[in-house]
Amino acid sequence: MSSRRFTSSDPDLDLLYRDLDEQQLQPLWELRGLLTPTPKVRSVPFRWPAKELKGLGERAGHLVTIDRGGDRRVLACANPGLGGAPYAVSTLWAAVQYLGPHEVAPAHRHTPAALRFVLEGAGVWTLVDGDPLAMSAGDLILTPSWTFHEHHNSSDQPMLWMDVLDLPVVAALEAVFFEEGPTDEGERGAAPESRSERDYGTAGLLPPPGRRARPPYSPLLAYRWADTDRALGRRLEATGAAAATMTFVDPTRGTDVMPTMRCEAHRIRAGGRGVRSRQTGSRVATVFRGSGVAVLGEQRFDLAPGDIIAIPSWTSWHLEADDQLDLFSTSDAPVLAALGLYREEELP
Amino acid sequence: MSSRRFTSSDPDLDLLYRDLDEQQLQPLWELRGLLTPTPKVRSVPFRWPAKELKGLGERAGHLVTIDRGGDRRVLACANPGLGGAPYAVSTLWAAVQYLGPHEVAPAHRHTPAALRFVLEGAGVWTLVDGDPLAMSAGDLILTPSWTFHEHHNSSDQPMLWMDVLDLPVVAALEAVFFEEGPTDEGERGAAPESRSERDYGTAGLLPPPGRRARPPYSPLLAYRWADTDRALGRRLEATGAAAATMTFVDPTRGTDVMPTMRCEAHRIRAGGRGVRSRQTGSRVATVFRGSGVAVLGEQRFDLAPGDIIAIPSWTSWHLEADDQLDLFSTSDAPVLAALGLYREEELP
Amino acid sequence: MSSRRFTSSDPDLDLLYRDLDEQQLQPLWELRGLLTPTPKVRSVPFRWPAKELKGLGERAGHLVTIDRGGDRRVLACANPGLGGAPYAVSTLWAAVQYLGPHEVAPAHRHTPAALRFVLEGAGVWTLVDGDPLAMSAGDLILTPSWTFHEHHNSSDQPMLWMDVLDLPVVAALEAVFFEEGPTDEGERGAAPESRSERDYGTAGLLPPPGRRARPPYSPLLAYRWADTDRALGRRLEATGAAAATMTFVDPTRGTDVMPTMRCEAHRIRAGGRGVRSRQTGSRVATVFRGSGVAVLGEQRFDLAPGDIIAIPSWTSWHLEADDQLDLFSTSDAPVLAALGLYREEELP
Amino acid sequence: MSSRRFTSSDPDLDLLYRDLDEQQLQPLWELRGLLTPTPKVRSVPFRWPAKELKGLGERAGHLVTIDRGGDRRVLACANPGLGGAPYAVSTLWAAVQYLGPHEVAPAHRHTPAALRFVLEGAGVWTLVDGDPLAMSAGDLILTPSWTFHEHHNSSDQPMLWMDVLDLPVVAALEAVFFEEGPTDEGERGAAPESRSERDYGTAGLLPPPGRRARPPYSPLLAYRWADTDRALGRRLEATGAAAATMTFVDPTRGTDVMPTMRCEAHRIRAGGRGVRSRQTGSRVATVFRGSGVAVLGEQRFDLAPGDIIAIPSWTSWHLEADDQLDLFSTSDAPVLAALGLYREEELP
Repeated sequence: MSSRRFTSSDPDLDLLYRDLDEQQLQPLWELRGLLTPTPKVRSVPFRWPAKELKGLGERAGHLVTIDRGGDRRVLACANPGLGGAPYAVSTLWAAVQYLGPHEVAPAHRHTPAALRFVLEGAGVWTLVDGDPLAMSAGDLILTPSWTFHEHHNSSDQPMLWMDVLDLPVVAALEAVFFEEGPTDEGERGAAPESRSERDYGTAGLLPPPGRRARPPYSPLLAYRWADTDRALGRRLEATGAAAATMTFVDPTRGTDVMPTMRCEAHRIRAGGRGVRSRQTGSRVATVFRGSGVAVLGEQRFDLAPGDIIAIPSWTSWHLEADDQLDLFSTSDAPVLAALGLYREEELP
Repeated sequence: MSSRRFTSSDPDLDLLYRDLDEQQLQPLWELRGLLTPTPKVRSVPFRWPAKELKGLGERAGHLVTIDRGGDRRVLACANPGLGGAPYAVSTLWAAVQYLGPHEVAPAHRHTPAALRFVLEGAGVWTLVDGDPLAMSAGDLILTPSWTFHEHHNSSDQPMLWMDVLDLPVVAALEAVFFEEGPTDEGERGAAPESRSERDYGTAGLLPPPGRRARPPYSPLLAYRWADTDRALGRRLEATGAAAATMTFVDPTRGTDVMPTMRCEAHRIRAGGRGVRSRQTGSRVATVFRGSGVAVLGEQRFDLAPGDIIAIPSWTSWHLEADDQLDLFSTSDAPVLAALGLYREEELP
Repeated sequence: MSSRRFTSSDPDLDLLYRDLDEQQLQPLWELRGLLTPTPKVRSVPFRWPAKELKGLGERAGHLVTIDRGGDRRVLACANPGLGGAPYAVSTLWAAVQYLGPHEVAPAHRHTPAALRFVLEGAGVWTLVDGDPLAMSAGDLILTPSWTFHEHHNSSDQPMLWMDVLDLPVVAALEAVFFEEGPTDEGERGAAPESRSERDYGTAGLLPPPGRRARPPYSPLLAYRWADTDRALGRRLEATGAAAATMTFVDPTRGTDVMPTMRCEAHRIRAGGRGVRSRQTGSRVATVFRGSGVAVLGEQRFDLAPGDIIAIPSWTSWHLEADDQLDLFSTSDAPVLAALGLYREEELP
Repeated sequence: MSSRRFTSSDPDLDLLYRDLDEQQLQPLWELRGLLTPTPKVRSVPFRWPAKELKGLGERAGHLVTIDRGGDRRVLACANPGLGGAPYAVSTLWAAVQYLGPHEVAPAHRHTPAALRFVLEGAGVWTLVDGDPLAMSAGDLILTPSWTFHEHHNSSDQPMLWMDVLDLPVVAALEAVFFEEGPTDEGERGAAPESRSERDYGTAGLLPPPGRRARPPYSPLLAYRWADTDRALGRRLEATGAAAATMTFVDPTRGTDVMPTMRCEAHRIRAGGRGVRSRQTGSRVATVFRGSGVAVLGEQRFDLAPGDIIAIPSWTSWHLEADDQLDLFSTSDAPVLAALGLYREEELP
């Protein structure tokens, strides 16, 4: 970068540039692209096909033991625009995680918050600070910032799910902490209901608040597909529109489930088309059921169940359904909103 | 009051008192009971027995047409401590409302907020700003401040429910407004789901916020007994305690359903006893199912389904169950809390 | 009240009324005036003239020792509409307090919140939870809910100030608590700055928050006339309008100084007229400087420094200035706002 | 990065790695340093000496016209740990800006928020959305996100001030927007008071809120050194401690002046030492007056007026004063706090 600066034909200016460089200073007037009319976006629209994610997940399952590095068998989506960084979009990590039959991914915690969206299967348990959350297809499971979490597959089948983390944001803020935890050795058979769902799983009813300060995330840690399915159906019916979106919220505040990530469920009627829009901030989405097309900027991506797509900041996008199309998406919208940087435009 | 002031043996003082009186002034040192060590409470612990409420409601149903004055066939609980005022406790109106087969209580709205708790029956509709809310035993129905509401009994049976209003508070603040509204003339047969429940009736999921400022009350207007029953059962199971309380909340904020009234559901296990406590602020409760005793101050009141009880401010109270006992209660706690005046004590 | 009910010509109805009466029930259709189109307001527009307030305060100062009942030499404004209750308007206590040279009004605390607005003089100290606040003409001094407070006159002159309390509201909610406190026996000479002002008295700068939960009122307890005067002057100059209003706020939140009372300073240019409006909720005001007229409803009240006026709920009002007119007013607006009951209308 | 992956001795694994690479996937177990026990911090403790900043600023003033690129004559502090990026710490831009006599830096706006802290001089005006804010030594001037701003030097002396922007955060979130604006051509002579200060510059007093939604930053845009100086002095006196910190706040909310940056003024008594601590998040500071030492991690940096220092995330630091030492600092603490990522430790 600094070499470009010594190109002036004025020797005094060259000397100034040299001295600035020595003093770890850079002249603004030689910097380009800092304050652009619209956002400079690094990640590109992209799709990771389910077929590949699943096939490679299975191969990893056979070749790599779970205790090898990180205690998680995870394949991270690396957006081609990000120069090799293992992030699906600029501010979100997205990955598939493969947990073999009767495997255990042991307990740890970290300040980056995570969520799991189950693409298929059942019979896995995630323990969050000791509370066992059953995982089945279509469920959203939260493992918020600094909560201990571990995954147990008590079934005879492997499970594949999508992980999303706010890791790029927490890393950019230089606030990553990590700690190993004690893993629960107990066997889990039949499905007890989680404490989280017992206390917070009924719409419009809450238990008495405890005396301790509430953490800044939802105490409801599992959102079941049956509920999501019904809510999307009701909403489509209520509005009569071609598409419906429901936002997953903290039932004690009505706010996003975690301070860094907004989770949404989308349904497009067969043959329908969602609203075209663009927002500041990045988004990843995965198809749960149905088929159609994601139109991201100028590009069209066919969608099949299990596909993961990257929707970069300020990129116009919409969805089109062949069969009724259900997607789950995560964005950094709460970050943008908290900092006064959220903008949204509907497009024709 | 003023006569008491001219009793001094000092003629100058008498003269001062006379002149003060003329000037519409009162000497603080002659006033008693303004600043008391603990609250001066006017209402008294009381019970209105279900048997009488129901019997008198039915008699009123036969004798009084619904269009006679106020368009509502309502019997208001008048606490004996309140000198004839038609209030169950100092800050809450409580009443039973009787709606005969195929009767309609026409539309109106008022700034005092109201809620309905259904004691028995089914087949009645309350329309709140045009949204039809079916009413069945155990349901809580909100008609918040300044929402148009009307009641339609589309069944062949009368219905009796409990009304609670914050009328004494709104009247004390001199902020009562009232307006007649256009009544929906349509016949209602089978039960469509309310828009309110379609949009807000799933735990942890919300539709996109609209562009208009949200009113300060819950957009979820009906809380169904099936949900309340399940939540109380889960909570008892989760805590292992003798008693459970769940609070009805606005799902978009996690706060009380309306800014003036806290609604709670209570369950005491058969043979169990709830915590004894006292709070600033007043409460009314009704028994939904089961039997037991309410101990209010030093008095014991036997409880049967449909009984209404008054629990005055700063009065120690607890519940004891014979059979499993389910109650619904409303208090002015949000008012006390908003004004920094809420105090609570657990008692042995 | 109940006698009026037995006037039906239908013996069955009479019997019903008798039985309702026995059961402490009242038929809604026989109640009048509960739900009125606009608020039923009990207090009336009124003025207590400064001349009388001062003269009677001085006479009380000579005739009544301060330790006689209540430890305060206070003359309470009793609105003629309130049937003898010692309240200036339905929701506010207003009074003049007279403290003779070298007198001490000993320490106590109560849940009703109070404020003092100094009409004339200097040299008095109010200690609020031990923090000494000097009082001079035009100053606003807060003694929030449940803070110990005591008044010391360290000068050779008596002082007269206006007290305003939310007592009617706290009493209606049955949440009055009272406690005597230990009085500081120290002599106070020269004026130390209060801790409150040292920490919170600079616009836009705050000390680090402490670890304890902040109480729901302003930590800044004294608002000096010099600041108020300058702010009103700047505001008039900035807007070019005939009248300016500034609201006293909690500098740590930007909200009203206490959860039950809004304090405002008003200035009307000489010959000018303020906006005519009405609001739900009640207000009391006192003239600090200047002269003019308060038009309350249909009535005109001449204004002189030290006059106290009562502006009832939903009563249209405005101010007209002869000389530049400065008033201090207190209303219950935060209560109305917190409960969703605040309405305001500008009038022609 | 990808080359390192093909080093396995297992050909199947090599094949998996190759296929993952083709599919834009990365195996978590081959990634290092993502989830570290404590934050991985890129910027390093650093000091830019005032002497160099001033000398180079003056040379730039002579050599570079202000209209050359960016319309600002700015030297950006480039932390040596950031690989050439023009940022003082990972999340903040800090720079000195030099404006010659009678120069004008024309109007523009951008979503990154900026603030100016004046190191010396007087006679410059910054117009923020048309409101003229005089700038003098020790003043803090805000130019919040998306407000038009321009700088006019109406004096015969150049001025040097420090700029701080949240640019790295807004760029990382891909939310940078920029727009040129119309520059005010008027001459400015004597100092009118800003509207901002007229309305919001008195502690504890606010004008009536307008009808439009308030933007998420302080409406008070200038914080004067006279106030800061007095507040620091009062605070030191009040606590008796060796050091005092005051936080600049939005007077309408009591929160940080802008949603992305916390501004603080620090004073250390002559011979005193501040508390040693560390926080998540980054900070830059500049010395306004006095001398001493900044101990950042293991390094000691002598401090003189005008020096700028970089304090990276989670780096222990404290200040020591020779003469009474006054600093101004800006951190990203509101970002960390809003996202639930703020941690702080006092150290011995």
